[in-house]
Amino acid sequence: MFADGVSRVAFSDADVAGRKYVMDLMRAAGLEPRVDPAGNIYGRRRGGDATLPPILFGSHIDSVPSGGNFDGDLGSLAALGVIEACDRAKLQTRHPLEMVVWSSEEGVAFGRGLAGSRIVAGDVKPSDMDAVWNGMRRGDAVKKIGGDPERIMDAVRLKGAHHCYIELHIEQGGNLERAKTPVGVVEGIVSIDRYTAVVTGFANHAGTTPMPDRQDALVAASFLTIAVREAVTKVPGRQVGTVGQIEVAPNAPNVIPGTVRMTIELRDLSSEKLRGIMDDIRGRAQQIAQQTRTTIEIVDLSRNPSALASPDVQRVIERAASKLSLGSMRLPSGAGHDAQMMAQLGPMGMIFVPSVAGISHSPKELTHWEDCANGANMLLQTVLEMDTV
Amino acid sequence: MFADGVSRVAFSDADVAGRKYVMDLMRAAGLEPRVDPAGNIYGRRRGGDATLPPILFGSHIDSVPSGGNFDGDLGSLAALGVIEACDRAKLQTRHPLEMVVWSSEEGVAFGRGLAGSRIVAGDVKPSDMDAVWNGMRRGDAVKKIGGDPERIMDAVRLKGAHHCYIELHIEQGGNLERAKTPVGVVEGIVSIDRYTAVVTGFANHAGTTPMPDRQDALVAASFLTIAVREAVTKVPGRQVGTVGQIEVAPNAPNVIPGTVRMTIELRDLSSEKLRGIMDDIRGRAQQIAQQTRTTIEIVDLSRNPSALASPDVQRVIERAASKLSLGSMRLPSGAGHDAQMMAQLGPMGMIFVPSVAGISHSPKELTHWEDCANGANMLLQTVLEMDTV
Repeated sequence: MFADGVSRVAFSDADVAGRKYVMDLMRAAGLEPRVDPAGNIYGRRRGGDATLPPILFGSHIDSVPSGGNFDGDLGSLAALGVIEACDRAKLQTRHPLEMVVWSSEEGVAFGRGLAGSRIVAGDVKPSDMDAVWNGMRRGDAVKKIGGDPERIMDAVRLKGAHHCYIELHIEQGGNLERAKTPVGVVEGIVSIDRYTAVVTGFANHAGTTPMPDRQDALVAASFLTIAVREAVTKVPGRQVGTVGQIEVAPNAPNVIPGTVRMTIELRDLSSEKLRGIMDDIRGRAQQIAQQTRTTIEIVDLSRNPSALASPDVQRVIERAASKLSLGSMRLPSGAGHDAQMMAQLGPMGMIFVPSVAGISHSPKELTHWEDCANGANMLLQTVLEMDTV
Repeated sequence: MFADGVSRVAFSDADVAGRKYVMDLMRAAGLEPRVDPAGNIYGRRRGGDATLPPILFGSHIDSVPSGGNFDGDLGSLAALGVIEACDRAKLQTRHPLEMVVWSSEEGVAFGRGLAGSRIVAGDVKPSDMDAVWNGMRRGDAVKKIGGDPERIMDAVRLKGAHHCYIELHIEQGGNLERAKTPVGVVEGIVSIDRYTAVVTGFANHAGTTPMPDRQDALVAASFLTIAVREAVTKVPGRQVGTVGQIEVAPNAPNVIPGTVRMTIELRDLSSEKLRGIMDDIRGRAQQIAQQTRTTIEIVDLSRNPSALASPDVQRVIERAASKLSLGSMRLPSGAGHDAQMMAQLGPMGMIFVPSVAGISHSPKELTHWEDCANGANMLLQTVLEMDTV
């Protein structure tokens, strides 16, 4: 969206430069940017009724290395656009409007995503600032982007602190493009369950060990990789499952693999469905272990519960699409978003626009300008609709 | 065999110490060790007929890292034992007896095995000494073990320079143990054909890419790993095939694998059979590529042709086993040995003794003392039989 081709990994100099650029734009639009102790940037436009909580909306501008220019940027700049449009139209909303640019959404630094919004949702303790990544203390990193690690707990917001949270984002998948539908109404952000499977065979000489005597951990891991795909696809629905990472030991052309460590990741809105699929995978793993004379141990790695969008907000987004004569469809978000943190504090909704070829986290990431504009208009319309309910 | 639990990687200080130890033993047995320009150690005992070429026998003492104490060591020390036994019996052979301890058999350093015997077989040029491994020039490495890199071509021996070459070695597989047979008569050293398969899919977001849209390189690689095993095992025989090394990119839990590089290694005495199996694997790879919407490119990496043991020498070894009342069986060697280099210069034969549980290249490598003694007696008996033909 900045279209400068520069990756902005959180806390890098490029990130600092991008943040300054956004804050300059905010000032030009008459907002006074406020950086909270976690480094999140807020900008608030007064509402008509001082007793009402603000409507919060925004996204992030940090990226993965070699990322694209739309993931996060679109929602951040469109949020600013909402403020500008209201100003131009001299529109007085009942609720204050508050835009936000979350810090460190991608989780490249310090290993956990949604870092800024996570703090705001209360998932933080002062000692978290002592973590070190790439030789940098987290407290110093937060200071670098204008935060205040000494007062980090002051960044936490309470339930009900905002009327609702709305986020516009690129889909990062190909569903909208395939359906030729310009607007996605997000049903929720999927649960992400990660496991490590450790396959233990026996490393032996690849020349002298007859085929029937082998306990080849990679053959077993191959059956398991295929079993994961089968278990995920045999149930109807939009769930996905991936073996994305695999480490083989000793990993030499002339040694039968003795050990394989592999990740299994499952995503769906329904945790119950994921549990069923995982039970299936565990059963298949036991059969594979027996057939290949290996052992397969599956260990829980992490579990991010799903975050459902408010049904009311989903209906408002659909109504907004109708008013703008834009087709819409409901779909889950397979990726994590700051919105899932905000769902803990109040009603949440997300608007998706199409990603060309579903490509994301890549310099090839692209959303056509028309779709970007549709998204910004949808965000404006949704905010205005939410102001009335 | 040294039973000191120390790995002797070629050209390491431990290797130099092991070589000194062996040369001291040779001197104690009345031999004058000669180090050739490649660093191979020879020791020659005079024969009755000065016009006859020597009977050459021996093995190596270098090891892989974390290797065992029998691979190579048994054949080297048993060769010395043959000399000692002849001395004790005041036995005068017709042919000179020449024991040899080959340098750098394992190929840990400078990346290619059978390095010392390879030079003797003529597979060397002076510029090979300029290779660098771990910051060490090969010429300096050869100098470190007492060789002379400036005169490396003088290490080459001509066809007919020896009457025959005999090597005693541990099996490094489980065939003899399983068959409860103390002596293996090696039919030859298998051909080792190596390939790299490059599977290209499309790296994409593991959360937002629906299952039917995926071009998952690891799923394709898993099918290919299983296909290699199926293609190898569906033909009767002792051939083996291994996918031992695999590299996945980007190799992250939350990214669909975009590229997989994997090795395919096939071994058998018959190159023709291996070609047939590889054709089968290529056909299966094309089907897998279509079904998974990936491309699979299979590139030749290296081909080590098989080296057959002389039928005459095999019969002599069988006769020697009968005389010693030891059961014997013919079998191929799935591992490479210096003997395959010597097969280029004259008749070659190998004697195997059982490896406990078939384990090798591991500190758990073990051959029972009784089997070691049987092997040494077999080497002596074979050498004496060869002296008469």
